[in-house]
Amino acid sequence: MRQSKYFLKTSKTFSEEDKITSARLLKQAGFIQESVAGRYYFLPIGHKVQQRIVSLIKDEMDSVGAQEMIVPTLHPLELWKETNRTSTTGFELMRVKDRRGSEFALGGTAEEMFVDLVRKYQISYKDLPFQLYQFSNKFRDELRARGGLLRVREFIMKDSYSFHRDEEDFKKTYEEMKSTYSRIFERLGLKTIAVEADNGYIGGEYSHEFIVESEIGESRYFVSDDGEYAAHEDVAKFKRSPANLGEEVKELEIIEQPEWVQTMDDNLKHYGKPKNNFLKNVVYKNSNNGEIIIAVVTGDLEVNKTKLENVLGAVGQLVPAEDGDLSAMGTKSGYVHCWGHKGARYIGDIVLKDSRNLIGGQKEEKTDSVNVNYGRDFTCEILGDISMAKPGDLSENGSELKEGRGIEVGNTFQLGFHYTKLMKGASYRDEDGVEKPYYMGCYGIGIGRTMAALVERFNDEKGIIWPRSVSPFDAHIILLGNITPDLKNAAEGLYTTLRSNKVDVLFDDRDGLSAGEKFSDADLIGIPFRIVISAKTLAGGKFEVKIRGEKEANLVTEDELLELIKK
Amino acid sequence: MRQSKYFLKTSKTFSEEDKITSARLLKQAGFIQESVAGRYYFLPIGHKVQQRIVSLIKDEMDSVGAQEMIVPTLHPLELWKETNRTSTTGFELMRVKDRRGSEFALGGTAEEMFVDLVRKYQISYKDLPFQLYQFSNKFRDELRARGGLLRVREFIMKDSYSFHRDEEDFKKTYEEMKSTYSRIFERLGLKTIAVEADNGYIGGEYSHEFIVESEIGESRYFVSDDGEYAAHEDVAKFKRSPANLGEEVKELEIIEQPEWVQTMDDNLKHYGKPKNNFLKNVVYKNSNNGEIIIAVVTGDLEVNKTKLENVLGAVGQLVPAEDGDLSAMGTKSGYVHCWGHKGARYIGDIVLKDSRNLIGGQKEEKTDSVNVNYGRDFTCEILGDISMAKPGDLSENGSELKEGRGIEVGNTFQLGFHYTKLMKGASYRDEDGVEKPYYMGCYGIGIGRTMAALVERFNDEKGIIWPRSVSPFDAHIILLGNITPDLKNAAEGLYTTLRSNKVDVLFDDRDGLSAGEKFSDADLIGIPFRIVISAKTLAGGKFEVKIRGEKEANLVTEDELLELIKK
Repeated sequence: MRQSKYFLKTSKTFSEEDKITSARLLKQAGFIQESVAGRYYFLPIGHKVQQRIVSLIKDEMDSVGAQEMIVPTLHPLELWKETNRTSTTGFELMRVKDRRGSEFALGGTAEEMFVDLVRKYQISYKDLPFQLYQFSNKFRDELRARGGLLRVREFIMKDSYSFHRDEEDFKKTYEEMKSTYSRIFERLGLKTIAVEADNGYIGGEYSHEFIVESEIGESRYFVSDDGEYAAHEDVAKFKRSPANLGEEVKELEIIEQPEWVQTMDDNLKHYGKPKNNFLKNVVYKNSNNGEIIIAVVTGDLEVNKTKLENVLGAVGQLVPAEDGDLSAMGTKSGYVHCWGHKGARYIGDIVLKDSRNLIGGQKEEKTDSVNVNYGRDFTCEILGDISMAKPGDLSENGSELKEGRGIEVGNTFQLGFHYTKLMKGASYRDEDGVEKPYYMGCYGIGIGRTMAALVERFNDEKGIIWPRSVSPFDAHIILLGNITPDLKNAAEGLYTTLRSNKVDVLFDDRDGLSAGEKFSDADLIGIPFRIVISAKTLAGGKFEVKIRGEKEANLVTEDELLELIKK
Repeated sequence: MRQSKYFLKTSKTFSEEDKITSARLLKQAGFIQESVAGRYYFLPIGHKVQQRIVSLIKDEMDSVGAQEMIVPTLHPLELWKETNRTSTTGFELMRVKDRRGSEFALGGTAEEMFVDLVRKYQISYKDLPFQLYQFSNKFRDELRARGGLLRVREFIMKDSYSFHRDEEDFKKTYEEMKSTYSRIFERLGLKTIAVEADNGYIGGEYSHEFIVESEIGESRYFVSDDGEYAAHEDVAKFKRSPANLGEEVKELEIIEQPEWVQTMDDNLKHYGKPKNNFLKNVVYKNSNNGEIIIAVVTGDLEVNKTKLENVLGAVGQLVPAEDGDLSAMGTKSGYVHCWGHKGARYIGDIVLKDSRNLIGGQKEEKTDSVNVNYGRDFTCEILGDISMAKPGDLSENGSELKEGRGIEVGNTFQLGFHYTKLMKGASYRDEDGVEKPYYMGCYGIGIGRTMAALVERFNDEKGIIWPRSVSPFDAHIILLGNITPDLKNAAEGLYTTLRSNKVDVLFDDRDGLSAGEKFSDADLIGIPFRIVISAKTLAGGKFEVKIRGEKEANLVTEDELLELIKK
């Protein structure tokens, strides 16, 4: 491709909003352009990279027998109602009505569509297992778009769905898909960690996120020192440190409280006891039905909303209670009781069971309760794992948890019977002639986010450094200086030779630009091999080649150059 | 691909609604499946065909220097408002609001998006011309979906947009694109005719439709006998036959009318004159502003709504007037006057100018007017070409027009300055330093409709006959009968050999099906080469190969087979 004819506009400046390296570089180098916040054009060179990522993923998906197809973008809303996802997806789901009044969801994920397709056919046990996938535009009505391609409202996702006879068969595919994903990211040049994650509105019981470590990522996770455990903060399990473990249960007392004791810090000072001795209530409201939820933990713990929602079976439905909700209960912030608020549902962390002689629980303006014990003085509707892990906590097998942060580029979900039980007729005929629901899994990779992760990983102060696996071009010929006929011939000759050797070349044949301008564009764009053709290199009958990201350029013959590039 | 593992479900039955061959065959052969009316799944084998069509188009687009990219699916509605298309596209445009209240159009065509992209950059005359294109999902809120892939509500379209310095430069590209389109369809095996067409809500002054002749197509067009002229019925020009041409203008008379004379047929009988002697009024209403339009023609002509809208500059806005509209004017059907209805806008056909001594014009219950002459007795706000051609009419150079019907698979549009004048900042800096609007064109191909046209063209009573250019597979191996280890080895061996020779093979390795079932599936699916492996063929050490659509099978060696397929 001749750069003089290519719709590739680099930019020296960038917006103050583009603090994130990948967002800044992809825009400056002319790969993407914003339409409105969270919606991007992929310009010709950006589209090429995206397509190369797509091809590589397709190659690996096909190699495990998955079959590419395509489902409509507009999903009949009735299907989403069948699985109750019109409520669990909350506001992220975009909806549209056609002029006949039919309602549709703009596809954000396609479980219902694939199940609805498959249930239109008679499936036999002989057909199973199989996996179907698509690359298609997904829509998410994100409240905040951020960081270029990191969190967008419209993006291409590879989503696949596997259908199985039973859990055992599914597990084989699930492991195979995890290896496939690791291989895909490895071929892309990305090191990923697979962490246990929350299934959220996708449903099912367990899932994994594939994360590329990065300071600017939105996924926070924990890895145990022994490497045996890795989990997203949403689900990370950890050992509790109950207060006064094994101590005898003392008599409940209601005591006078000095007026200055208001906050948790005041309490710590006043009682001289560690944080885990104090009861703490966090109040939520269910946005679907208005229910008030009081989460009870000890002072050393933070409530994990995701875990709490899962314990309640209220995925995506909890919001923090507001002052009005508290005053409606006759209380205010800091004075919520561990018992006695009528109509509220009390959900406690498992730590309460073994904690002894706690402080708090029923704090009034002038009194506080001490030696509060779960079971005797109060109970909760459910005791569960509702707390957030933190760095330094121990994993269940006693290894210290460290915090990590990164970009989620893919995920794999066990769906089990979640969809097949909710959607009528989603079954296969087994060997014994009985119709049974199929067991399912699903697997996603965000293409744009993968592209952003690549740029986050491969760049320097001058620009992007594309790995060869996905670089938009293999080589970049730079024709320099006062372009004489000889120089032009040499450049055109090399351009032809490389292309006839199936090297994909960007040829900077632009007139009237300085060496500095051309070099800085080349560095910004980040193609692996930069080949300079100038009066100087031509005199020696050689080409100057420099690998992007390396410091030294080398003079090589045409044959050596070809060998280098094709290696 | 092993058929036993392939998600490919053929069907012997079909719905009564699928009267259209391509709809029936694509569904029965397992290429597509309906989600809801007008929205289709492309199953793995259907997706493959679609992708092959896409690749072939991409190849030709790239060869003329067009550059592939992608724009967001959701277009900010403000852009469509800038060009006034929120009103001209009428109900076909689907709209969606996000949770922050921003409004979007679901892309049905992307002129505004491409112009908005390009105007974000400083474009110089040196950058021009260029052409950008995308393959992307398009949405049309069609009132009636029909015929499988022929008229759908969601489909993949290749749309491209070219930017030019001036009309002269555009015209070169326009001609090049017309040849490119002819070449694309030729490579696909489709003979197309390029006919002049209406620009509709796309805007601009002229355009061409590429039509594959077909009885079931929705595009009706006229071709002149001398082959010099081809135009869609919406725009086809023809010579008028004015009544009493050259006759002297006679005195206007109001005469008694027998009660039985009501319809045009009654009039013909009563007066004994040909149809072109009678005045005829057709009443429309502008759905945007409520204006009443009275189109005046002669009895031999039908009003062409598209032409009328173009004459009025009211694209997509006219609807037939209803009884209520007529009674509001104090009249009723059959008694509309050629003059005198207050508030109505009169638009006449050019035939009126040369017609003499017409009948009608001001018909009352008991009287009629005769010797009515345009200019003396009535005038219209505009006289224009507002009538529909019909078979037997003459083209402007006197050659007889014949009717044709077909499937519109592509179109090319001159846009001129239509968008660049409406959209601020859509300009380039010319050599003289002055900012000037770019001159534009756009070019579309519907992928699904092309696929349907291919099936309409290539089929027989047994199923589809894919041309090799887009067949989902090159060859279909059918393993027959009682599958012995020897037979299986032979089939597996051939499967491996073909694949290692880069032949894309579907291998019918399914167990427990009769020869009849396998053959009928193979015929339905329509892969070019069918290779049968059975005890009989194996004994002779040869393979039985049959070309789909031919009658005879041949016994060939492996080498001969390879040669045949690779030819």
